[in-house]
Amino acid sequence: MRRVDPSRSAGAQSAAMVPGIEDVARVAGVSTATVSRALRGLPNVNALTRARVREVAAELGYVASPSAVSLASGRTRTIGLISPRIRRWFFANVIEGAERTLRERGFDVLLYTFNADLPSSRAAVDPEVLRRRVDGVLVVGLPLAPEEMDALRALGQPLVCIGWGGYGQVTVRLDDRGTAEAATQHLIALGHTRIAHITGAPEDIAPWSPPVERAGGYRAAMTEAGLPVDPALEAHGNFDVAGGRAATRDLLDRAPDVTAIFAASDEMAMGAILALRDAGRRVPEDVSVIGIDGHDLGELVGLTTMAQPADEQGAAAAQIVLDMIAGAAPPPELVYPTVLVERGSTGPAPSAPRAVD
Amino acid sequence: MRRVDPSRSAGAQSAAMVPGIEDVARVAGVSTATVSRALRGLPNVNALTRARVREVAAELGYVASPSAVSLASGRTRTIGLISPRIRRWFFANVIEGAERTLRERGFDVLLYTFNADLPSSRAAVDPEVLRRRVDGVLVVGLPLAPEEMDALRALGQPLVCIGWGGYGQVTVRLDDRGTAEAATQHLIALGHTRIAHITGAPEDIAPWSPPVERAGGYRAAMTEAGLPVDPALEAHGNFDVAGGRAATRDLLDRAPDVTAIFAASDEMAMGAILALRDAGRRVPEDVSVIGIDGHDLGELVGLTTMAQPADEQGAAAAQIVLDMIAGAAPPPELVYPTVLVERGSTGPAPSAPRAVD
Repeated sequence: MRRVDPSRSAGAQSAAMVPGIEDVARVAGVSTATVSRALRGLPNVNALTRARVREVAAELGYVASPSAVSLASGRTRTIGLISPRIRRWFFANVIEGAERTLRERGFDVLLYTFNADLPSSRAAVDPEVLRRRVDGVLVVGLPLAPEEMDALRALGQPLVCIGWGGYGQVTVRLDDRGTAEAATQHLIALGHTRIAHITGAPEDIAPWSPPVERAGGYRAAMTEAGLPVDPALEAHGNFDVAGGRAATRDLLDRAPDVTAIFAASDEMAMGAILALRDAGRRVPEDVSVIGIDGHDLGELVGLTTMAQPADEQGAAAAQIVLDMIAGAAPPPELVYPTVLVERGSTGPAPSAPRAVD
Repeated sequence: MRRVDPSRSAGAQSAAMVPGIEDVARVAGVSTATVSRALRGLPNVNALTRARVREVAAELGYVASPSAVSLASGRTRTIGLISPRIRRWFFANVIEGAERTLRERGFDVLLYTFNADLPSSRAAVDPEVLRRRVDGVLVVGLPLAPEEMDALRALGQPLVCIGWGGYGQVTVRLDDRGTAEAATQHLIALGHTRIAHITGAPEDIAPWSPPVERAGGYRAAMTEAGLPVDPALEAHGNFDVAGGRAATRDLLDRAPDVTAIFAASDEMAMGAILALRDAGRRVPEDVSVIGIDGHDLGELVGLTTMAQPADEQGAAAAQIVLDMIAGAAPPPELVYPTVLVERGSTGPAPSAPRAVD
């Protein structure tokens, strides 16, 4: 079998077909290195020279091959963005914030989503596809297995996690525990004592995660107020509307005397409101509901929530990964506070048993 | 100044540092072309050979540089996905559907978003960043200027538009006109005659677009029912909640006798419901509201809607672009129907003037 070096033959073909960097350099009267720097917008190129090179490149129809540029510079000007979902409120807003910041700085985004089931029930996330394609990686929160995190770290590139900071990575996130405490305290201040908590997946293998932290904050606030922490009042809602609805339906069966629900996301809180309606419970007269997020559509159902700036967190994480690529030391952690937005879904605890209609 | 050929020097460096394709070929006893085909999962490689090559590559720690693979084969196994937004319901669902299909077929996604303002008020979308980086392009609907479309076409790659098919490109979309007619007829059948329509941006330069088609369907249904088409009943809501709310507020000032609103998206319909609440109008007793989409949260406000399968449209478009890359002729157009989902936001027209409370 004849051996073929595919990279050499293709290189020869494209050199014959399209104008090369040498052609631009010759016509513009500068070195190929200067052409390369000028077209990539790197510093140390005179503004007039830059304009001249761009003009010549446009005239000749020269387009730098990003593959060649990447091989030459080791820089792809692309950031890998790994997210299990893009259609949930938090993920979509973080991604849009990150993407806007990266574009403004001339970086592209290589988006990877993966099956969002728990690592135990899906194929492992394999970051090898990112190798040599990106200059840095953003991971938008969800539990990864230790082996998956090791594989990401093995890429050897700046890595910033958003909303979830397992395994000691540079992280941009909420004050999850403080937020959960404040949400629970809001309900306690309204006189509620039977307060349920709907959180994420039933098992979470990460050593640190928002659902784990939020559940911790809920329990701490209950304990601090002298209220019992009852496992029957905790349910798992998978961070979506359908999950919050199913969890609330089960919860009402198990603990019909519940008068308030703190959901770890607005989408689960909206699911809780649907389930309460299905069960003929009035919100907030019979049961109060509070979420976390500040979802754009929360106002529609009068949802009380702990609002977080998801878009800003995405933008900040993007800025940090760019700074790390430029050689700066990352901040240890960027922790955002939340703000209580009080609407109609929370109210005083019912003081007496429900009246018969 | 000394001339440097950057691609040559970098190539020499990386050859010295990491095992090359030649090393894998030598150890596995096959040609480099076979190694390349085996590792990229291309056909015409014996299954045993493929397994052997992968084993050797893993042993040696060989990772194909995607840049080198791309230069050699002209194939990047990456699809460019251009979308003005990712956090709106339609865009997020289309992108998730497309991304899932592409991943299943071993393709990555290079996501580009751009400023979603009209072309007249923003910098032009410049697809040059996609050149030589992708094998095909998906554009998720929004108006592009003719020059922007020309630049996209000049990439010379398979191009599929979703939800918006200006300029004769291969398109996956809704039956926009039929959907708008059906929504309007639903309101007419309930006895409404003063029916408003909230559509997209105030100017739309594309020769064909969903807002233009939907407005056309609305007017056609009104005319067919013998109802006057009144320009005062049309408003522009920018396809988001805030826009739908502002448009409805203005509309109620201009045409206080309106008894039904057909919004061209569920998010605008939700905005309309908020504005009606602000104005003390009951839904549907005073004003009925219908949208288009089948938004996941529509049930929360009992929104009647013309539901569309956005996720499926994304998946279908991804399949078409992959088929085109493989050499297949694309279908002329893929037009999806919608389904009326009747909930509580539409009801009979008020038969008498509003009673004083």
